[in-house]
Amino acid sequence: MKLDEKGLLIVLSGPSGVGKGTVREALFKMEGHDLVYSVSMTTRSPRDGEVNGREYYFVTRDEFIDNINNGKMLEYTEFCGNFYGTPLDEVNKLINEGKEVLLEIEVNGAMQVKEKMKDAIFIFIAPPSFDALKNRLIRRGTETNKSIDDRILKAEREIGLAINYDYIVVNDEVKNAADKILAIIRAEHAKTKRTIEKYNELLEIKK
Amino acid sequence: MKLDEKGLLIVLSGPSGVGKGTVREALFKMEGHDLVYSVSMTTRSPRDGEVNGREYYFVTRDEFIDNINNGKMLEYTEFCGNFYGTPLDEVNKLINEGKEVLLEIEVNGAMQVKEKMKDAIFIFIAPPSFDALKNRLIRRGTETNKSIDDRILKAEREIGLAINYDYIVVNDEVKNAADKILAIIRAEHAKTKRTIEKYNELLEIKK
Repeated sequence: MKLDEKGLLIVLSGPSGVGKGTVREALFKMEGHDLVYSVSMTTRSPRDGEVNGREYYFVTRDEFIDNINNGKMLEYTEFCGNFYGTPLDEVNKLINEGKEVLLEIEVNGAMQVKEKMKDAIFIFIAPPSFDALKNRLIRRGTETNKSIDDRILKAEREIGLAINYDYIVVNDEVKNAADKILAIIRAEHAKTKRTIEKYNELLEIKK
Repeated sequence: MKLDEKGLLIVLSGPSGVGKGTVREALFKMEGHDLVYSVSMTTRSPRDGEVNGREYYFVTRDEFIDNINNGKMLEYTEFCGNFYGTPLDEVNKLINEGKEVLLEIEVNGAMQVKEKMKDAIFIFIAPPSFDALKNRLIRRGTETNKSIDDRILKAEREIGLAINYDYIVVNDEVKNAADKILAIIRAEHAKTKRTIEKYNELLEIKK
């Protein structure tokens, strides 16, 4: 029996190169959750086969900036000259439907969400060590040495922000990390702040 | 990889008749935890085969009262003229060994622990409905009607105290409830407040 019928907003974040995407994919393949993605908004042009409202909401730069100014973006970032972000209405709609909305975003975006959504769950994916992260950033790249140094510096800054999260999960093994995240989602649903209303109703407790 | 190597104190509680003991037994039979009991202290006489320090620490009434007065009992209760309680040293020793110490205790005892152990995890086992609890209390008993009425009144008071707990888990099915508790234990280990120290060490973050 579920005392918490509302949805959750789960923010999965961590430094570049930590393997957030791989953990997220493993998580979605597992059973025992009601996780959904929220469709992001972008100003980049749709690629062949991409459908508006499925891969992304494709909007103009002016429309995107209007959304930012009207408080309609939960978080956003600019990358290679294009905006990418999460529309607030989309997330709220899914949460109200009882869905577990997962955002896999950069540390900077997560901090933006934290200011707006008090009830969201913030999970920081950590590397097993700083060397492991560096090696991953180096191995990844067709990048020049300069760009790798930049990314390592950025990662260094990002790993210092873990303290702002509710949970820290080490990505030592993808399956293990995904398992822990599932446990966190189950536990969060049982939190008294999320269950007490339905509990009082169920047990006919007068306030 | 475990960032939290310390133990946990998990307090499992709930109204009389809710099936705390059954959930606790199911939990101990499951895998994926490091749960241990803490040996309680009592003033009742040992029964045949009971060993001091195994089933209970058997002490005199004076010794028990001394322990209470010296702040050495984490919680205690008097039942049918005998004291029963949890020695604080025992619990601290197990936590320092990295164990997950489970206390299955009455609501009153749990509130005593709450005052002393800020870091403990409080899980309230709830019945699926008040009628289900009443039926269980009635079925259970060789008790007189009077005593059943007393227990129902007590249970009614106890179910109102769920708000003081961190989590509420409905005992609709024992396996389901035990599963949720395991998820809570895993999630609690990943909490930033328990992991940040080791995390900073691991990633060589200077404070």
